[in-house]
Amino acid sequence: MLYKNELIQSFLSGDMRALARTVSMVEAGDLQSLQLLAAFAREGKRARLIGITGPPGAGKSTLAAKLAESLLDRGERVALLLIDPSSPFTGGAILGDRIRMHAIAGRSGLYIRSLGSRGSLGGLSRAVPPIVQLLENFGFDAIILETVGTGQAETDVIETVDSVVVVTVPGLGDDVQAMKAGIIEIADVFVVNKADREGAERTARQMEEALKLGPSDVPVLTTIATTGVGVPALISSLDAHYQTMLADGELAKRRERRLRKALHAYAASLVSVRLAEWVEEQLTGHWADIESGRVDIYSCGRRLAEEFQKGR
Amino acid sequence: MLYKNELIQSFLSGDMRALARTVSMVEAGDLQSLQLLAAFAREGKRARLIGITGPPGAGKSTLAAKLAESLLDRGERVALLLIDPSSPFTGGAILGDRIRMHAIAGRSGLYIRSLGSRGSLGGLSRAVPPIVQLLENFGFDAIILETVGTGQAETDVIETVDSVVVVTVPGLGDDVQAMKAGIIEIADVFVVNKADREGAERTARQMEEALKLGPSDVPVLTTIATTGVGVPALISSLDAHYQTMLADGELAKRRERRLRKALHAYAASLVSVRLAEWVEEQLTGHWADIESGRVDIYSCGRRLAEEFQKGR
Repeated sequence: MLYKNELIQSFLSGDMRALARTVSMVEAGDLQSLQLLAAFAREGKRARLIGITGPPGAGKSTLAAKLAESLLDRGERVALLLIDPSSPFTGGAILGDRIRMHAIAGRSGLYIRSLGSRGSLGGLSRAVPPIVQLLENFGFDAIILETVGTGQAETDVIETVDSVVVVTVPGLGDDVQAMKAGIIEIADVFVVNKADREGAERTARQMEEALKLGPSDVPVLTTIATTGVGVPALISSLDAHYQTMLADGELAKRRERRLRKALHAYAASLVSVRLAEWVEEQLTGHWADIESGRVDIYSCGRRLAEEFQKGR
Repeated sequence: MLYKNELIQSFLSGDMRALARTVSMVEAGDLQSLQLLAAFAREGKRARLIGITGPPGAGKSTLAAKLAESLLDRGERVALLLIDPSSPFTGGAILGDRIRMHAIAGRSGLYIRSLGSRGSLGGLSRAVPPIVQLLENFGFDAIILETVGTGQAETDVIETVDSVVVVTVPGLGDDVQAMKAGIIEIADVFVVNKADREGAERTARQMEEALKLGPSDVPVLTTIATTGVGVPALISSLDAHYQTMLADGELAKRRERRLRKALHAYAASLVSVRLAEWVEEQLTGHWADIESGRVDIYSCGRRLAEEFQKGR
C-alpha cells in the first residue's frame, strides 16, 4: 500500500515515469491497478482530444508528430497515443519503427506511447478509455490519438474524441470510395496529405463532394506532413472546431459520451472476469454432457447467462 | 417461426445459401439468431480446423487457397474463413481483393467467407467461435482459418484450431526476430513461403534454430504457394500432425478448449448486453454527480459491477 501511495504521489506531482508505469498497469488489464484510477480522477482537469485516422500509408504518424510539435511550440503539454490493434507490440517496441517520432521524442511536456493489442484485457476498446482518462488527469492540454485503419477498436476510440481528423492521400483510388460511407459520419476535418503528389486536388474535390452528403460542413485541407506545409491551417481548423463545439454544447456532449463509454467498459471488464470464473465453476461436473453432445453449448451458455444476471 | 424452421431445414439439408445467411446473422451479433445455433449443434459432426497465420505479404491467402484446392481434390468438403480485423468489410466485399481465391471460387464442396470487424458484437473474438461451430455442424471436413497478423482477435482464433500453420517469407529481417517469441508457442507447422526468393534457406534455418527453444518438434517447410511447390509436403505434415494429436489425446483437448471458449464467449455476449442496459438504467439521475466530478467513473463502475454480480 505504501508502494501504491508513492505511485499516486509521484503521478500527482507530474512525474512522467509514474505516468508511464500506471499506463502499463492499466494496459496490462491489471484490474487492481484500475482502482488507482479513482485516486487520479481529479475534478476540473480537461484535455482536448484529437483523433487522427485513415488508411495505412497516409502519413498519419508524420502528421501527428507535426501537430504535436506545433502544439508544444505554443506551450501546450501534449500526449501522443499511437494505437495499432494489429501490432503485438506495445510501449517502446513499436516506437523504433516510427522514425517520424524521433524528431520530437524527448521534448519537454511531451509523452508518447504506443498501444498494441497484446495483454489488454478485453481488447483495446476497453484499455484505451481509462488510459485517456489517466492522461487527462495527469494534466495534458492536448491528447492526440492516432489509429490505423477502421477496425472496431479504432472506431470505438475515434467515437470518443473531441475532433476527428481523417487523413488520406492522392491516388488511393477505390479505397477513397470505400472510405466515404464511414468517413462522412466521423470526420470533423478532412486532410489530403502528400499534397505534392499528382491528383491531390482531384482527391480533395472528390472528398468535398462526398462530404456534402454528410450532416455538417467539414473542411477539406491539403498538407505535406513531411515538410509541415498545411499544418498551421490544420491547427487553425481544429481550433475553430473546438471553439464551435465549446459554444454549441457539442464538446460537453462528446465528453459525456466518452465518460459513459469508459464507465461501461470498466464495469464490463470487472463483470467479465467474475462471469468467466463463475461459468467455469458451474461447468464443473457438467462437461461430459457437452462433450458427448447431449447438451449443446448455446443452450448451456444461455442458461448460465440468465442465471448470472437473474434479478438484474 | 415458420421462417426460422425453414432456415433450419435448409441448413440441415446442406443448402449453402442457408449457411451463408446464418453466418451473416451470427456475424451481425443478432443474439436471437444465436438460438438457432442450438438447433444446429448436432452430435458427431467433427471438422478438422487448420489455422494459417503470419505477417502481411507472406502469401497466406494463396497458400490457403492451394491447401483448400488439395483437400477438395481428395474429396473433402472445405470451408475457408478469412479473418481480417483491420478490415471494415465482410462477406463478399473483400473477396474482390483476394484475387488468389478466384482460382478456386465456385468449386463444389467449397465455402469461402471473409469476416471483417464491422458489426460483430463484442468483436471478432466472440463472432468467430460460433461461426466455426456452424461450419462444423454444416458438415465440412476441413475448416481453414486465415488470419492476418498477431492481434488479440487473431490470437484468440488461432488458439482454438487443431493445427496452426505459421507462414513467413525470406527477408523479413527483424520481423522474423520479433515473431519468434510468440510464434514458438503456437506453431504446429512452420512454412517459409516464396521459397524461390533469395535467403529462403537461411530463413528456414533461422526458424529451425528458434523453434528448437520450444517444447516440441515443429517441422519447417518451404513452399512456393503461387505454383504449388511444397504444398503436398505441407498436407502430409498436417495429416501427420493430425494423426499424432488423435493418438495422444491432444485433439480432444484442443476441441474441449474450443468448445469452452465458444461457450464463454456466448454467455459473455448475452451478459454484456444486459449489463449495458442495466448500467444505463442505474445511471439515470446520477449522471450529474459524475459530470461534476463528485463521483469518479471508476468508483461508480466498480459499485455497479459488484451490484450486478452480487451473489454470483
